[in-house]
Amino acid sequence: MAVTFPLGFLASGSTAGIKPSGKPDLCLIVRTTDDARASCAMIFTRNAVTGAPVIVGLKRRGDVLSGSQPAPRAVLINSGNSNAATGRQGVMDAEACCAAVAPLLSCVPHQVIPSSTGVIGRPLPVSRITAVLPAVVNQLARGDAADFAAAGAIMTTDTVPKSARTEISFNSGDSVRTIRIGAIAKGSGMIAPRMDSAFAPPAASATMLAFVTTDAHISSVDLQHAAEAACGGSFDRVNVDNHPSCSDTVIVLASGETPGPAMSRGTAEYEAFAGALRRVCEDLARQIIIDGEGATRIFKITIAGATSDEAARRMCAEVVASPLVKCAIHGQDPNWGRIVTAAGNAGVWFDTAASSLLIGGVEVYRAGVPIPEALTDPKLKVAMAAKEVSLQLTVGVGPGTWWMLGCDLSKDYITINADYTT
Amino acid sequence: MAVTFPLGFLASGSTAGIKPSGKPDLCLIVRTTDDARASCAMIFTRNAVTGAPVIVGLKRRGDVLSGSQPAPRAVLINSGNSNAATGRQGVMDAEACCAAVAPLLSCVPHQVIPSSTGVIGRPLPVSRITAVLPAVVNQLARGDAADFAAAGAIMTTDTVPKSARTEISFNSGDSVRTIRIGAIAKGSGMIAPRMDSAFAPPAASATMLAFVTTDAHISSVDLQHAAEAACGGSFDRVNVDNHPSCSDTVIVLASGETPGPAMSRGTAEYEAFAGALRRVCEDLARQIIIDGEGATRIFKITIAGATSDEAARRMCAEVVASPLVKCAIHGQDPNWGRIVTAAGNAGVWFDTAASSLLIGGVEVYRAGVPIPEALTDPKLKVAMAAKEVSLQLTVGVGPGTWWMLGCDLSKDYITINADYTT
Repeated sequence: MAVTFPLGFLASGSTAGIKPSGKPDLCLIVRTTDDARASCAMIFTRNAVTGAPVIVGLKRRGDVLSGSQPAPRAVLINSGNSNAATGRQGVMDAEACCAAVAPLLSCVPHQVIPSSTGVIGRPLPVSRITAVLPAVVNQLARGDAADFAAAGAIMTTDTVPKSARTEISFNSGDSVRTIRIGAIAKGSGMIAPRMDSAFAPPAASATMLAFVTTDAHISSVDLQHAAEAACGGSFDRVNVDNHPSCSDTVIVLASGETPGPAMSRGTAEYEAFAGALRRVCEDLARQIIIDGEGATRIFKITIAGATSDEAARRMCAEVVASPLVKCAIHGQDPNWGRIVTAAGNAGVWFDTAASSLLIGGVEVYRAGVPIPEALTDPKLKVAMAAKEVSLQLTVGVGPGTWWMLGCDLSKDYITINADYTT
Repeated sequence: MAVTFPLGFLASGSTAGIKPSGKPDLCLIVRTTDDARASCAMIFTRNAVTGAPVIVGLKRRGDVLSGSQPAPRAVLINSGNSNAATGRQGVMDAEACCAAVAPLLSCVPHQVIPSSTGVIGRPLPVSRITAVLPAVVNQLARGDAADFAAAGAIMTTDTVPKSARTEISFNSGDSVRTIRIGAIAKGSGMIAPRMDSAFAPPAASATMLAFVTTDAHISSVDLQHAAEAACGGSFDRVNVDNHPSCSDTVIVLASGETPGPAMSRGTAEYEAFAGALRRVCEDLARQIIIDGEGATRIFKITIAGATSDEAARRMCAEVVASPLVKCAIHGQDPNWGRIVTAAGNAGVWFDTAASSLLIGGVEVYRAGVPIPEALTDPKLKVAMAAKEVSLQLTVGVGPGTWWMLGCDLSKDYITINADYTT
């Protein structure tokens, strides 16, 4: 199970006829419990050009965090049309879909979060969506079949559906309390999430959509903090094509069905929950980069010894974004020079005298110069042929460290993207 | 003519046997005039990992700008080996080449600037270079043949040699004074120059090498200012693969052979000279992007209406770096959505209500939404098939404007870079 694994959720995936292919394109995830113990976190793209559902979602978030509206009850997601570059009509269309499903769920339209992915610049076919909503609500169910249908209905160029789940347990007096987390996601191209924050200036883009459910009992503010940290440790660390989308969205719905009082930030229970949430998101992010458009293998760049984590993050971002590094990974070429010079472009301190690069555990570069004998080590050839290539770069003696995941650049990427029209 | 077009310069291009192919790989450009009226400007990559010649060049620049050393007399350039990731030995090797050629030119080693491009991480074959230096000096000449040989000897993955020249004239009392500028350059891959500044924090990278000569009479400090402005208006505006090199270098040698006093910053003569220098560099930069690895066509993104020129520059940088935009240009797909969302990723204000995108003069997007009838305009199909596609994006009503040149992303790029080993 995925999104219906936690207590208090139902899901369905259906076909509204938005995609010319006739494939499933409408997904509904619903919380079935009372609003009193429920909460919600929402994180969106930092792109300045945003789709209509992001505009609506940002308003929903403000209302939820300020407590002026009850916790959301549902997320209504369509694929095949991103409802982006659709102007004011797009916002009205997104709200119209929410207003159509709300009475079927006995909630107010404000409690429904819209989300869309697909072709941009075309009006959302609202009447097709609203026509099937009664049937979609009737199909809501719990279990593997419902979750699989939900995950399939949000796919665009994805080749496989993506889902994850986990559970954690705590001793609580005489009893054991269990918190469950389930999730589905989509994403293959336009993947380089840089997600926003409700609290801080933008810190950390694709159309990457992820919908997470949990039965944790937690306030929306604390859940938002945990979700932003989870994004920074997962979706923000993958980059397929360095082009953040106008629709990237992560929604976390919590039912509060786990017994007991709400957990608070700073407690051991919160930290354990936040860690579990991050691991679920990391699992999804890894599924996304593996399914990156045209990708045949992925690589993990880990940077250590930087002046700060932020410096290390900026170096990782240059490495995963470099077409020269991506081509080297594709060609199974241990091209240490491209990796090192990519990191050198981050505009941060790089102490070549203290530097070192390991590829698949084989040190190929140290103190500013290559290690010629390493380049003929058979272990290096094996490392470069792996489905996941490990790159460990030390750039000095500082405390800063970070990691990111990238994928190779293949001719299939060109085929997929030189012919596709948004 | 190119580098020997201005008065006071000789050049040669030869073969030292550095390239396994046996193609020309050693270039010498020499100023033949007195040091008293001469000057020099040097601009290098901002990459934190720099080749040995850049390390030596930065020292030369400090000495020239502080007046502690006379103006450089020559630039000695080799291709086939970048003398980068070669540690202390690399610096000693670069200095050894300078020391070997200096007596042949009756100058001190400090007056020779070394420059290298090619494979990284391998020791520079100093003895091969020094063995041919006497013959190289004997071959120094003025004219088309010498300039063509010089331009050819600095090529790596370039498919064509690159050169440019211009002259400007001033009325000076009874006479007309003429200033000539000549230049050669190389660059095809690892092209996304972000050049440094001797005066300011880094403001604006490949292996992009450009060597410019002029007979202008100007101080090294004023020449450095003019050269940095020229870089900002030319090399810093082209991006083949978003991976600045560890060796990017621009050197401007001035002989001062034009009669009269030295021109000063702020005068009309200086402004005219600075403009001409920028145009020569822009000509070379355009030749580099047209010869970009795997490129079949180029595009010019012009952004207007931004809050500042810097905001517009950041948006242009996102557009030329986006693989999705590059694939659309390759596929002749007028994919306005990718262009607009790429600009939206720059982290600066984008006023979609006041936005507009013209492709080849055809407005395809306005006020946040596409113009469907434009997408079937036959003029648009012609515009997308052009060798240089014009993209004009307005992002608001601010005063900020910028432009950059990018190239398409083809399967040939993958072929060239998935098999090449640095």
